[in-house]
Amino acid sequence: MSDTRQLHLGAFMRPVSLHTGAWRYPGAYADANFNFAHIKSFAQKLEAAKFDAFFMADHLAVLNMPVEALRRSHTVTSFEPFTLLSALASVTERIGLVATASTTFDQPYHVARRFASLDHISGGRAGWNIVTTANPDAALNFGLDDMVDHDERYVRAREFFDVVTGLWDSFADDAFIRDVDSGIFFDPEKMHVLDHKGPELKVRGPLNIARPPQGRPVIVQAGQSEPGRQLAAETAEVVFCSPRDLAGGKALYADIKGRLEAVGRKRNDLKILPAAFIVIGDTVEEARQKRLKLDSLVHYDSAIASLSIALGHDASGFDPDAPLPPIPETNASKTGRSQVLKLAEEEGLTVRQLAQRYGGYAGLAFVGTADTIAEEMAVWLNEEGSDGFNVVFPYLPDGLDDVVDKLVPELQRRGLFRTEYEGTTLRDHLGLSRPENKFFR
Amino acid sequence: MSDTRQLHLGAFMRPVSLHTGAWRYPGAYADANFNFAHIKSFAQKLEAAKFDAFFMADHLAVLNMPVEALRRSHTVTSFEPFTLLSALASVTERIGLVATASTTFDQPYHVARRFASLDHISGGRAGWNIVTTANPDAALNFGLDDMVDHDERYVRAREFFDVVTGLWDSFADDAFIRDVDSGIFFDPEKMHVLDHKGPELKVRGPLNIARPPQGRPVIVQAGQSEPGRQLAAETAEVVFCSPRDLAGGKALYADIKGRLEAVGRKRNDLKILPAAFIVIGDTVEEARQKRLKLDSLVHYDSAIASLSIALGHDASGFDPDAPLPPIPETNASKTGRSQVLKLAEEEGLTVRQLAQRYGGYAGLAFVGTADTIAEEMAVWLNEEGSDGFNVVFPYLPDGLDDVVDKLVPELQRRGLFRTEYEGTTLRDHLGLSRPENKFFR
Repeated sequence: MSDTRQLHLGAFMRPVSLHTGAWRYPGAYADANFNFAHIKSFAQKLEAAKFDAFFMADHLAVLNMPVEALRRSHTVTSFEPFTLLSALASVTERIGLVATASTTFDQPYHVARRFASLDHISGGRAGWNIVTTANPDAALNFGLDDMVDHDERYVRAREFFDVVTGLWDSFADDAFIRDVDSGIFFDPEKMHVLDHKGPELKVRGPLNIARPPQGRPVIVQAGQSEPGRQLAAETAEVVFCSPRDLAGGKALYADIKGRLEAVGRKRNDLKILPAAFIVIGDTVEEARQKRLKLDSLVHYDSAIASLSIALGHDASGFDPDAPLPPIPETNASKTGRSQVLKLAEEEGLTVRQLAQRYGGYAGLAFVGTADTIAEEMAVWLNEEGSDGFNVVFPYLPDGLDDVVDKLVPELQRRGLFRTEYEGTTLRDHLGLSRPENKFFR
Repeated sequence: MSDTRQLHLGAFMRPVSLHTGAWRYPGAYADANFNFAHIKSFAQKLEAAKFDAFFMADHLAVLNMPVEALRRSHTVTSFEPFTLLSALASVTERIGLVATASTTFDQPYHVARRFASLDHISGGRAGWNIVTTANPDAALNFGLDDMVDHDERYVRAREFFDVVTGLWDSFADDAFIRDVDSGIFFDPEKMHVLDHKGPELKVRGPLNIARPPQGRPVIVQAGQSEPGRQLAAETAEVVFCSPRDLAGGKALYADIKGRLEAVGRKRNDLKILPAAFIVIGDTVEEARQKRLKLDSLVHYDSAIASLSIALGHDASGFDPDAPLPPIPETNASKTGRSQVLKLAEEEGLTVRQLAQRYGGYAGLAFVGTADTIAEEMAVWLNEEGSDGFNVVFPYLPDGLDDVVDKLVPELQRRGLFRTEYEGTTLRDHLGLSRPENKFFR
């Protein structure tokens, strides 16, 4: 089975579930987000299922929420990505380890070192999710009064990428001779001093770490804005995105893949993996009931606030147990409102259920049996909606076990997913080539 | 055996040996400094021997050396501390993990997060070696043209320490309720917003990580300058230092311990652990021969440069195989020169051997049998020269195996070192109490 005809699967693991009711689901580990033993067991199960990667999002602040939502949120505290992924590197052997690092609030020398080090420790399994950090609260933790402008963040991100990738190429792959007899440890002629002087950054180099096993850790990008898509086309090898449905997925896929040629890259040099929330039952109806049960664990006060935002209209006075009443139309929120109305109609949800859906997880979801979900995923792959998915688990461990024990075998049976890792590095799993060194060919 | 009468032992592990000939010693792993499998085996052996801690120094640049020395140095590249120690955290259970982080070239929010995360992942085994970074090449990797002044670095370090320790106390120990029935995950009244606004740093907080298991990771300091000693007295719980001999050790010990009372701390709140290079033989003569063999692996050209520096006099014209000739006295280098002359006389070394000693490792060394070294260490402990040692291994793995298999059992036989870990955290090993939360008592 050739690479292009199979799915790539990542696991979105920070927080371990994005669903705000996850920690309350029957059988869930309430502390899963912050318990190393649990997270280790998740990583080992995902590896046994041959997942491409374990993906850590990140936040550089406690998220700013109303206190009623905050006190109910299991996402408030969590491990820092490099410490967690490095700890997982020594208790796993094949699964990729994707860490988020901010180009706005970190230094390229630090970022280059940590990813190079993780790539060495893990034998070539590191990936860098480049983010520019949009949360204004993060700025306050780094000495600023206001967040840096969006466009300025992307200008710095582009230069930051050049510096980090330049630092990774500080040494030729064969620079380290370690000739005991002559006493020559390495060849200084195979060491490159970057000496970068740009508008945003000045970094001399060289990096004090040998070239990473993958040449470069895999570059991941999640931005969907215009500069985000362009940065992805120029630099990313994996795009993590959030289309709401297949039509949205296909549009985004065509747009980003279309930009590649203009920058001299091939379509296959970049994989597009939308976030997918997966709830599996023995029947489709059982899966739907599981989801309704999970949604019901979202507190109504914070849920109704989320619905109000989605509608662009205060929903707090609506009868929670009745269908959504007619709402006067405004320009501000056409898309959001039409999505809510569509959802209310399709699933016949009450105001409470709609609110809890928006307060829980309202993105792209596959809810059904292993068979129906595998079928849907095949459609996404065949119709160029995606190259795979970044799986969001509804609750842990059961929601993860269902994917690993039921969905993955069904995908494998259909030839849509690998049954063994064919290589050892994250690049191998994703079918990405190892970049040449910029300075030594 | 009470804590005060036993040694504390750390292992200095970056580079795995400071001796520049280490990688060429017969049987040595030439790539030990940068091979995770080797380093994992070292950490596990040190843990089996009940060492207090595994200590990672750090550099934020490739060290600036003449090219002849550089190409022969095994210290050029190495793992980044957090990635390495986190990877070791999941394959060890008790040994402390001390990482170096710079207050000059990092951000307190990042540093606080990474240590808190490592402390959680390791179950309370993290320590922070606070450095201000003196190497001017580091500044060039972080956008500066010149190194920040020494005094200014220490002003920032002191404030940085206050911010990091304040961030660690962002949550009360009992803030996380995780009450599944009520849906309350944590109590926002037990979350403290630091809102630090100082001359050097502005950091809002709170940290997005629960309070570390140790309350605070253990604070380690290595500066020996006047501001370094004062910072240590105010903040440190372990001082890592480099006295040349027992007299020097006792003077430093008395000075730093003496400063504690003035800042309201007890003598036992801080442990002093000098670096000690240890070479063990079955006889004292065999140990000396091992050391001479190791020194002989240092390249003469770079060795003679080190000797010239130590003498304050160009030694490149001296006959390598003759004793040191008389040298005209200058004021600039009295101490260094008298040390060289003393060493030449005591061990009867030629110019070549002296040069290779200075080019290899010229700090405090214990060279003898397990019995003679245990005896010397007891004298240091009893005469208040130190509270233990940070062991520098001559070569790996054999030099480490000798310490673990020969010296440690002898120290244990004499009651000078633990035979089992009594607690689970690095604080437990060091006999340090868990600090109260600054904001929640």
